[in-house]
Amino acid sequence: MTELKNDRFLRALQRQPVDVTPVWMMRQAGRYLPEYRASRAVAGDFMALCTNPEKACEVTLQPLERYPLDAAILFSDILTIPDAMGLGLYFEAGEGPRFRKPVQDAKAVEALEIIKPEQDLTYVMDAVRTIRHELNGRVPLIGFSGSPWTLATYMVEGGSSKDFRRTKQMAYNQPEVMHMLLEKLAQSVVAYLNAQILAGAQAVQIFDTWGGALSHAAYQEFSLDYMRKIVDGLIKSNDGRDVPVILFTKGGGQWLELMADTGATCLGLDWTTDIGAARARVGNQVALQGNMDPTILYAKPERIRQEVKSILSRFGPGNGHVFNLGHGITPEVDPAHAGVFIEAVHEFSAEFHDAQ
Amino acid sequence: MTELKNDRFLRALQRQPVDVTPVWMMRQAGRYLPEYRASRAVAGDFMALCTNPEKACEVTLQPLERYPLDAAILFSDILTIPDAMGLGLYFEAGEGPRFRKPVQDAKAVEALEIIKPEQDLTYVMDAVRTIRHELNGRVPLIGFSGSPWTLATYMVEGGSSKDFRRTKQMAYNQPEVMHMLLEKLAQSVVAYLNAQILAGAQAVQIFDTWGGALSHAAYQEFSLDYMRKIVDGLIKSNDGRDVPVILFTKGGGQWLELMADTGATCLGLDWTTDIGAARARVGNQVALQGNMDPTILYAKPERIRQEVKSILSRFGPGNGHVFNLGHGITPEVDPAHAGVFIEAVHEFSAEFHDAQ
Repeated sequence: MTELKNDRFLRALQRQPVDVTPVWMMRQAGRYLPEYRASRAVAGDFMALCTNPEKACEVTLQPLERYPLDAAILFSDILTIPDAMGLGLYFEAGEGPRFRKPVQDAKAVEALEIIKPEQDLTYVMDAVRTIRHELNGRVPLIGFSGSPWTLATYMVEGGSSKDFRRTKQMAYNQPEVMHMLLEKLAQSVVAYLNAQILAGAQAVQIFDTWGGALSHAAYQEFSLDYMRKIVDGLIKSNDGRDVPVILFTKGGGQWLELMADTGATCLGLDWTTDIGAARARVGNQVALQGNMDPTILYAKPERIRQEVKSILSRFGPGNGHVFNLGHGITPEVDPAHAGVFIEAVHEFSAEFHDAQ
Repeated sequence: MTELKNDRFLRALQRQPVDVTPVWMMRQAGRYLPEYRASRAVAGDFMALCTNPEKACEVTLQPLERYPLDAAILFSDILTIPDAMGLGLYFEAGEGPRFRKPVQDAKAVEALEIIKPEQDLTYVMDAVRTIRHELNGRVPLIGFSGSPWTLATYMVEGGSSKDFRRTKQMAYNQPEVMHMLLEKLAQSVVAYLNAQILAGAQAVQIFDTWGGALSHAAYQEFSLDYMRKIVDGLIKSNDGRDVPVILFTKGGGQWLELMADTGATCLGLDWTTDIGAARARVGNQVALQGNMDPTILYAKPERIRQEVKSILSRFGPGNGHVFNLGHGITPEVDPAHAGVFIEAVHEFSAEFHDAQ
């Protein structure tokens, strides 16, 4: 494999010294970029982009052409696993993702098979290989998956949900059925992320988008326990380098100690958590990724720069910080504002690092 | 005034001994009750119920007829203040609240006048007096208001919002305009809650429904600081009894210490916080209210009872707990399940109290 030219991101995840704080944005290949909208218009729709490795590669690289980002992230959807399990993913305009065959009882859960990624999701593995090749060592490539709980919410509800009523009903009234579902998902996620790693992903992130909708106790039982199993099951190093794992539970700020105990390399923080307090709590165990409110990107450039400074100061000097937004960048953001953000991270963070 | 027959709720708020843990439910006078739906059908719509003191009294008392609740809460809307300021509140089916005249610039904020509750919101004060009279000392009556930040989000967005983009844009780009708006709202809330107290409310709750959408720093600047001003400005005792203040920031579990420092009597917890950990953090300063996940009410009765037991055990023996849901009860809940919940609180909590 080609030598990595910019390894700031991987070094920061391992809490090693860096020259400046590395930065990337969740959903950085997305609708706020006119070139992304153009690619998507040509491809037809979102899934057509995901399932075509060349197109997926094209849009993955677009933000890197514009901005000095320190990592690329595979362009894909979190719902590829349930789709591969036969649930029939589709998207309805303005409605978000939907499944033709939701999973709502024991029989449906029993019928699910653990995925074989290279066979069932060839297009994802081909996308990883293509992107890694095209990146040519420029920055590391991040692979990802939804968490078992997050995937389960879409599978049981049949799409997005406000209160996750059906999913929680299954968890509360038929915990054995929910655990069977989560176990199959956890095994599938392990297989999926390991296949991504073998195909070339140099770090992986688990998106637990809806873990924060659970109570403290239910989070541990239905989300965290399965993420721990995933961390345990992942390939620890590949191609002579450790493969870091980032765990991101949106709304998980109260549970950082529990999350750090999974053995993850890094915790993703949403913007509600004070990153300085988070570092004091778990900074000797894990790196931290985050955590600017994505809506700050709607503010004036000077305000964006001020916020970047403030978060860098809250984290303080030393190692173990990957700058990111606290959630995905939204479609209406001005791409110039994203640029201001990314450059501010590099500009202002140098003083917090002695290295190089 | 008539002597209070059941003062468990007020005693628990003051962390005084009680025989069993008091319980009420946010939105207990609501659409899950067939008798509420009937009253609403007769009245015409939601605002017709709110603005008619007799009707508001009727629906406030409905859940007390069904369940052994330990408090009544004024039936009203959190958006009465902006409506009284002239923004033109209306409700569109399935769309939630809307304002005809949103407040989106300095000029609009400057034009707002601080409300005079007895004059501008006579119907609310009349409802408080009517309910208090009809309660006849059965249980205490809770008055309430939205927090300044929460009211501001609806006023600036013109209704509900997913990411509060306009409101945050105002906060980030024109903080002086946002602070002017929040200051006017804080003064209005003080006047509004004090008028409710003088009309007969025996405790008040501040609903900071959207404070949890802010970053740690922005929460303090734009939400918490104004709630502290409100707590400072409230009448401390009336009719020979202290008037407790409950502060409820949904999603505020990371900020309990800051919230307790406002001087509030009690903090409302959503279901994501471990109430045992919360008690360890701030239990020597404030009482705690909460915190069962409202979706548990969709589970089987035995599972509901188990969850009640678990929360009581997490809080542990001693004083200072008001049982509640972590958010409002939802329209599709079976009223029998709400009954199971409320009775379980009284049944299982006796062992945690020595009093009486």
